[in-house]
Amino acid sequence: MLDLVIKDAKVFTSSGYFEGDVGVKGGKIVKIGDVQEQADRTLDVQGKYVVPGLIDGHTHMEFPFMGEVTADDFYYGTSAAVGGGVTTIVDFVTPSKGQDLLSAYQKWRETADPKVVSDYGLHMIIREVNPTVMEQIPEVMGRGVMSFKLYMAYKGELMVNDGEILKLVREISSHGGVVGVHAENGEIINELVQEYVVEGKVDPIYHYYSRPDEMEIEAANRVASIASLVKGVTMYQVHTSTGEAVDVMSSYRSRGMSYFNETTPHYLTLTLEALKRPDGYKYVMSPPLRSDDQRTKLWQKLASGEIYTVGSDHCVYSVSQKRRHREEVPSFHEIPNGVPGTETILPLLFYFGVKKGKISMERFVEVTSTNPAKLFGLYPRKGVVQPGADADFAVIDPAKRVKITPDVLHSNIDYTIYDGIEVEGWNVMTIRRGEVVMEEGQITSPRGSGVYVPGKPVK
Amino acid sequence: MLDLVIKDAKVFTSSGYFEGDVGVKGGKIVKIGDVQEQADRTLDVQGKYVVPGLIDGHTHMEFPFMGEVTADDFYYGTSAAVGGGVTTIVDFVTPSKGQDLLSAYQKWRETADPKVVSDYGLHMIIREVNPTVMEQIPEVMGRGVMSFKLYMAYKGELMVNDGEILKLVREISSHGGVVGVHAENGEIINELVQEYVVEGKVDPIYHYYSRPDEMEIEAANRVASIASLVKGVTMYQVHTSTGEAVDVMSSYRSRGMSYFNETTPHYLTLTLEALKRPDGYKYVMSPPLRSDDQRTKLWQKLASGEIYTVGSDHCVYSVSQKRRHREEVPSFHEIPNGVPGTETILPLLFYFGVKKGKISMERFVEVTSTNPAKLFGLYPRKGVVQPGADADFAVIDPAKRVKITPDVLHSNIDYTIYDGIEVEGWNVMTIRRGEVVMEEGQITSPRGSGVYVPGKPVK
Amino acid sequence: MLDLVIKDAKVFTSSGYFEGDVGVKGGKIVKIGDVQEQADRTLDVQGKYVVPGLIDGHTHMEFPFMGEVTADDFYYGTSAAVGGGVTTIVDFVTPSKGQDLLSAYQKWRETADPKVVSDYGLHMIIREVNPTVMEQIPEVMGRGVMSFKLYMAYKGELMVNDGEILKLVREISSHGGVVGVHAENGEIINELVQEYVVEGKVDPIYHYYSRPDEMEIEAANRVASIASLVKGVTMYQVHTSTGEAVDVMSSYRSRGMSYFNETTPHYLTLTLEALKRPDGYKYVMSPPLRSDDQRTKLWQKLASGEIYTVGSDHCVYSVSQKRRHREEVPSFHEIPNGVPGTETILPLLFYFGVKKGKISMERFVEVTSTNPAKLFGLYPRKGVVQPGADADFAVIDPAKRVKITPDVLHSNIDYTIYDGIEVEGWNVMTIRRGEVVMEEGQITSPRGSGVYVPGKPVK
Amino acid sequence: MLDLVIKDAKVFTSSGYFEGDVGVKGGKIVKIGDVQEQADRTLDVQGKYVVPGLIDGHTHMEFPFMGEVTADDFYYGTSAAVGGGVTTIVDFVTPSKGQDLLSAYQKWRETADPKVVSDYGLHMIIREVNPTVMEQIPEVMGRGVMSFKLYMAYKGELMVNDGEILKLVREISSHGGVVGVHAENGEIINELVQEYVVEGKVDPIYHYYSRPDEMEIEAANRVASIASLVKGVTMYQVHTSTGEAVDVMSSYRSRGMSYFNETTPHYLTLTLEALKRPDGYKYVMSPPLRSDDQRTKLWQKLASGEIYTVGSDHCVYSVSQKRRHREEVPSFHEIPNGVPGTETILPLLFYFGVKKGKISMERFVEVTSTNPAKLFGLYPRKGVVQPGADADFAVIDPAKRVKITPDVLHSNIDYTIYDGIEVEGWNVMTIRRGEVVMEEGQITSPRGSGVYVPGKPVK
Ligand SMILES: [Zn+2]
Ligand SMILES: [Zn+2]
Ligand SMILES: [Zn+2]
Ligand SMILES: [Zn+2]
Ligand SMILES: [Zn+2]
Ligand SMILES: [Zn+2]
Ligand SMILES: [Zn+2]
Ligand SMILES: [Zn+2]
Repeated sequence: MLDLVIKDAKVFTSSGYFEGDVGVKGGKIVKIGDVQEQADRTLDVQGKYVVPGLIDGHTHMEFPFMGEVTADDFYYGTSAAVGGGVTTIVDFVTPSKGQDLLSAYQKWRETADPKVVSDYGLHMIIREVNPTVMEQIPEVMGRGVMSFKLYMAYKGELMVNDGEILKLVREISSHGGVVGVHAENGEIINELVQEYVVEGKVDPIYHYYSRPDEMEIEAANRVASIASLVKGVTMYQVHTSTGEAVDVMSSYRSRGMSYFNETTPHYLTLTLEALKRPDGYKYVMSPPLRSDDQRTKLWQKLASGEIYTVGSDHCVYSVSQKRRHREEVPSFHEIPNGVPGTETILPLLFYFGVKKGKISMERFVEVTSTNPAKLFGLYPRKGVVQPGADADFAVIDPAKRVKITPDVLHSNIDYTIYDGIEVEGWNVMTIRRGEVVMEEGQITSPRGSGVYVPGKPVK
Repeated sequence: MLDLVIKDAKVFTSSGYFEGDVGVKGGKIVKIGDVQEQADRTLDVQGKYVVPGLIDGHTHMEFPFMGEVTADDFYYGTSAAVGGGVTTIVDFVTPSKGQDLLSAYQKWRETADPKVVSDYGLHMIIREVNPTVMEQIPEVMGRGVMSFKLYMAYKGELMVNDGEILKLVREISSHGGVVGVHAENGEIINELVQEYVVEGKVDPIYHYYSRPDEMEIEAANRVASIASLVKGVTMYQVHTSTGEAVDVMSSYRSRGMSYFNETTPHYLTLTLEALKRPDGYKYVMSPPLRSDDQRTKLWQKLASGEIYTVGSDHCVYSVSQKRRHREEVPSFHEIPNGVPGTETILPLLFYFGVKKGKISMERFVEVTSTNPAKLFGLYPRKGVVQPGADADFAVIDPAKRVKITPDVLHSNIDYTIYDGIEVEGWNVMTIRRGEVVMEEGQITSPRGSGVYVPGKPVK
Repeated sequence: MLDLVIKDAKVFTSSGYFEGDVGVKGGKIVKIGDVQEQADRTLDVQGKYVVPGLIDGHTHMEFPFMGEVTADDFYYGTSAAVGGGVTTIVDFVTPSKGQDLLSAYQKWRETADPKVVSDYGLHMIIREVNPTVMEQIPEVMGRGVMSFKLYMAYKGELMVNDGEILKLVREISSHGGVVGVHAENGEIINELVQEYVVEGKVDPIYHYYSRPDEMEIEAANRVASIASLVKGVTMYQVHTSTGEAVDVMSSYRSRGMSYFNETTPHYLTLTLEALKRPDGYKYVMSPPLRSDDQRTKLWQKLASGEIYTVGSDHCVYSVSQKRRHREEVPSFHEIPNGVPGTETILPLLFYFGVKKGKISMERFVEVTSTNPAKLFGLYPRKGVVQPGADADFAVIDPAKRVKITPDVLHSNIDYTIYDGIEVEGWNVMTIRRGEVVMEEGQITSPRGSGVYVPGKPVK
Repeated sequence: MLDLVIKDAKVFTSSGYFEGDVGVKGGKIVKIGDVQEQADRTLDVQGKYVVPGLIDGHTHMEFPFMGEVTADDFYYGTSAAVGGGVTTIVDFVTPSKGQDLLSAYQKWRETADPKVVSDYGLHMIIREVNPTVMEQIPEVMGRGVMSFKLYMAYKGELMVNDGEILKLVREISSHGGVVGVHAENGEIINELVQEYVVEGKVDPIYHYYSRPDEMEIEAANRVASIASLVKGVTMYQVHTSTGEAVDVMSSYRSRGMSYFNETTPHYLTLTLEALKRPDGYKYVMSPPLRSDDQRTKLWQKLASGEIYTVGSDHCVYSVSQKRRHREEVPSFHEIPNGVPGTETILPLLFYFGVKKGKISMERFVEVTSTNPAKLFGLYPRKGVVQPGADADFAVIDPAKRVKITPDVLHSNIDYTIYDGIEVEGWNVMTIRRGEVVMEEGQITSPRGSGVYVPGKPVK
């Protein structure tokens, strides 16, 4: 007796697709193919596309930053996730200044565990280097945190310097961990911000001008160059926004380095023009939105395999927060950086990517599920449709047309940066470890039903 | 009642691995996971690795070239194939001068059908452009020949010129076909050969000197540049032997072109030093073996994903043929070009690649099976382990140590270019459409038991 | 007693400028600096710029091509030259099919000697490879023809194949000669021309479409790659029209090859838009005019030093010839390729280059005089202002504003492709071996007063 | 009546050579060519090569650094200079911490003026950014200091950060100044030094390991990228030691930026093997000596024109200083960085460059004299042989064979890093503003006879 059978599914995986049944027991996939056994629940998904539950490798829930805490707590944030077919998020533990890694990890667990609807994993941000931090790196890895994030920007806040990067790359790599980087030249950005502010150039578009393409490309080159001094690294540039930064990484990968990267749906679908809108402040995130030309390059590199994952960088602030609770729009440098995104990965990538012919369904599955699972040590528990894996699925109605508005989404904010965009293809059901957690827009699983999924060493 | 169950298999696919059972009926995979049903035959593969049957996308059986016919006919050749876990070959139909494509196709089918032990598909070589050829391109595609090969070398024999290449790329692409190219500058090679022969430099090593790296890289650049004039192409460079040629293709792929390539096990495991041996003539193939430096680059690019497939270029001549039936070794330019290879893809890639830590099992499966299946329109019938696919498998004993000698191989020749090399990991059983066709070195299926597998349009 | 003193001249050279007098005797510069001696003639050039007489390294006078003979014979052509401050042209000897090099050389000398007003040197075009040609290469070099031109385009006419190129590069280089190339892929162009003509796309703009940027870049890469097989070459790509082709050459030069190139004033000042004009047929030359973007790149590379010379590719056809003596404009592929240019090198480069701040006067002198002198073995007789050099000068009035029209030029045609363009800066006097040969627009020296200047081996 | 005539000189310039006389009056060249006038002194230089006096754009005389003051004061240092045909040095004013630019300039003038035998110009090092520094930039330019040097290395000492670099590039460029950079990643070097010291790896060779090629290339890329944010810059990388760093600059120059660079004779003639010698400590300078492969690349790029100047980075410490006055060799990171060089530019470049066929005499003159004169605003007073220029010359005996030893040199130290190297070609006379200041090894002009040559704005 099975718990669940998905009948006559058209299943897409990172290596193709097949038609058949999927049998689930104890939250796991146990049978694939022609499944005759009885089950507690049988789902008929005729005409739908079944894909492995998405893994959003980049979220910031309940994240204190720039004087605000992000508006999506782990309940709202993971509700948005499962709304969009994301069955696992990987959130960034962000220690406060001076806090040690283990207690930050502990705090994140305690905050998330009672609230999460999706499953979740954790990355660790390292903002300062000291003996405690260095000692605790293997310890947090022992708790399933296999990937770290270093900032080359946000001077005075999160930024670490090049020497610290080298030290951290050495230490993390020696334990088989993944080194994520936010690659922008923070010194230059700091200087440009000051120059613009002094000149009274404070509209949101100056957020773009103060973070030029060149300074992402420069940082990508710098950190790759530094990492090349260490043997056996696994590097990972988050939220890559320029084609040339991707070229840098391709070139190192081509010479034998494990160098991966992520882009986000907003770089693939929006451009810097959004910052010129009256509500341009809503579109402030870092790195900033880029030119249409960069957008084209990113799609090409997503198709070519040079971009490894798509994560949302879900980092939500309410309108009031974005405006710092004032009437007038604040100076660009005071607007909290971040936009919503976890719930719209699926429809945006499916419609603008797959339907528009830019990427195949295989690439869709690969970048939204299989690759993040592998990179963050969640594979083969997550990211695949095969016996033994968690029964995590998104069920896409490929013909459903939806106009994106805040109403159809589950975040704890009343706007979306994709407002008014109409897509064809929508996630109509989300299955997490064999349980239907979202159906036709309704979250059907309680707070805290998600679990922490520790990562395993990749190498 | 199933025909076959493979119990407790450790199955490797292009996206990972799982442990479970595989149920087969009517030659197809019907169940994956926990399979309880009875079956005619149950295989216990405890401790073995099960992979999708290899697809060798590059063979020349019974191929008349340079005044000789290759020594492996379709029976010997496909026996070697299944000996090495290859369940499908894709052979090159080579029309004779003036012959039209359809009758060449017909001839190939008639020759192969009664003899093949593995399944097989076909590519079509185009050696001349005329109205009949152009008309028959869609017709042979209608018969399942989805990929073509153009030669930029072998002047006066197989070579077509740049204008013809453009014409053919246009026509083939308009029907969704794949354009394969042998990329070497035939004019220059022709000139260099003449120069060396005039100077009396006729040892096998001059085969290498007459086909410099630069002339492969040049040709790769030229044909990519020509293809860039046409929209919607799928290009494919066969037997790529230099890292820089791969770089050329990566750069075009990065800008949105579907540009694939193949390398061969011999470029990955041997070097030009072999041509200096007393029996160097056995190592004459084109492009020639390269430097150790190139070998390293090819491994890196195989790991990075820049190389898409590994095919054998199995093109076998007996020692007598290699020597043109003479006592003395003939001049390098008279030695028939070609080496054996289909049976040793698996052990060489597994040992020198996977065991030595250069590539993962996923990459192994991807380049030897999934990718060629996709590229040549055989997917999802071939190249995957999923419901509905043909039950084609190689069963690898990862611990078996074997010294490669002619005795352990099945080709119709009495030597191997890998003679004496000891590997760990060997194919111990081959299953083709649910039937065990090779077991412990014995071919267990009769001549003609293989079938022709027509390719389907990829786009 | 001197023949001539130029007093208080502001002299520009390839390494800078100085103010002083220049004393001339016997056609040579004999004194520079403070010259007190008497002279037959003293020129006051206050407020003018004195530069070494220009060397136009690329002209086709009385050139039979595409069924027409160019309209400028050596008298008209060199009158135009000296009109524009060009004191030496290097014309292309073009053997007719089957003609040997020496008799072609002889014919060119006999035609030119009685007519030239400027001095002149010769290049040799090689259009076919046979033993006579190969033997005569050193012989024509013995007569001062140090540079050769090979065509990779004009299939069936002038084009040689890659093997012939290698053979010629070897032979020419072994004698210290310079290998010039017209780098465009003639096979592809031939194919594209046929395609467009079949489709009835015959307007002049299809001349551009049939000769894509990519096919110049490809050919540049191919010939550089071929030349890299030979030691000690001096290569030279004539009339380079794309920035990427220049990049190819820079990259080879950076690794130690002597690789030079030329661009022309028309690529620096006009764009493909000209081909869309009603009289677009006048703008048909090969390679064709390119995009504005390419024009920008060429200026940058002229400034950076990556472009070595500027020659005119002066190849003049009357309106009637351009139209093939018909009412209607002929198909693009029947229009004789070529435009006027020798007389406008100076004003175009001075105004659009120096005055607009794109290049310095040093670069102006370098690319128009010093570099061609060195490349073609005319140095130190030509191309410099130093004792012992020929007293060749152009005297530029930097403030003179001129609207370019056929009236102000000396070619044997009644139009100019620069008609209506207004420039600031004009050549007001030309001095050739100490003799004023043009003054205020009047040619003051008789037919045949120019001499042949044999080139000397550069290495 | 002239002061000096150099008769029948074979004069080499950056654009070629000529034979003739040079007449000098009041320290200036007044006549070139056939000079008949009487002169106070007439030099017969039959069989010699006359070149413009070298300009060594990179010296550190009396420089306090790493706890030592360089052993060559301005008298010894400029004696060495004129000994080697260098008639002008450009020394680096190095303010002490907190010192303002003007007083540092003043101190340098006061120290140098009474001692110099050669002429000299000044660069200004900027080690910290504050309002006084920013204000004084145009003021020191008003005193003829046209070029600045920023350090990306020597953390805690001379290093400025990226934001400061941007600020300085903006300010200096707005006044037409030249921004020199010492491009090495100081953070990483700092980290590597600490790592090696902790591990007890303190031999001189670890100086090399702690400053990897990659960290120069990275820094070159970073600063070029930063400079690309500013319009109208003139950038200049001093003492470039890797081919790839040169490639970075070529690529920016190719796109329109004024990007220049310098290498030194030691990178062109020595390799890292020297650091492994028993007296390896003598060879410690930064960037460190590199591999033989890098040495080859630098020669190629010197020939291709991609390297703009050759300066010595003359920064001399006695053996006792190099050893920090101890018995045992100190840890690599305590050895004062710097080597002698100004006197050996000429023989090393002439012998290993010109005589060995790697560069032409034109390039020799260009990189040792004409280009530095132009870059540092000394042109046309210095760097050329033309009327009005200072009569500065080196007279080379091209056939003279000399074994380099401390005895034949004029520095205030008793060793040379070129000890025992035998060269062909030696400077036998140095003329500075028409005065013979060195003849057959003897300095013939008193202390303080040199003058300060203020630079002029280049743009
Ligand atoms: Zn970030
Ligand atoms: Zn983030
Ligand atoms: Zn082939
Ligand atoms: Zn083949
Ligand atoms: Zn041409
Ligand atoms: Zn021409
Ligand atoms: Zn330095
Ligand atoms: Zn220095």
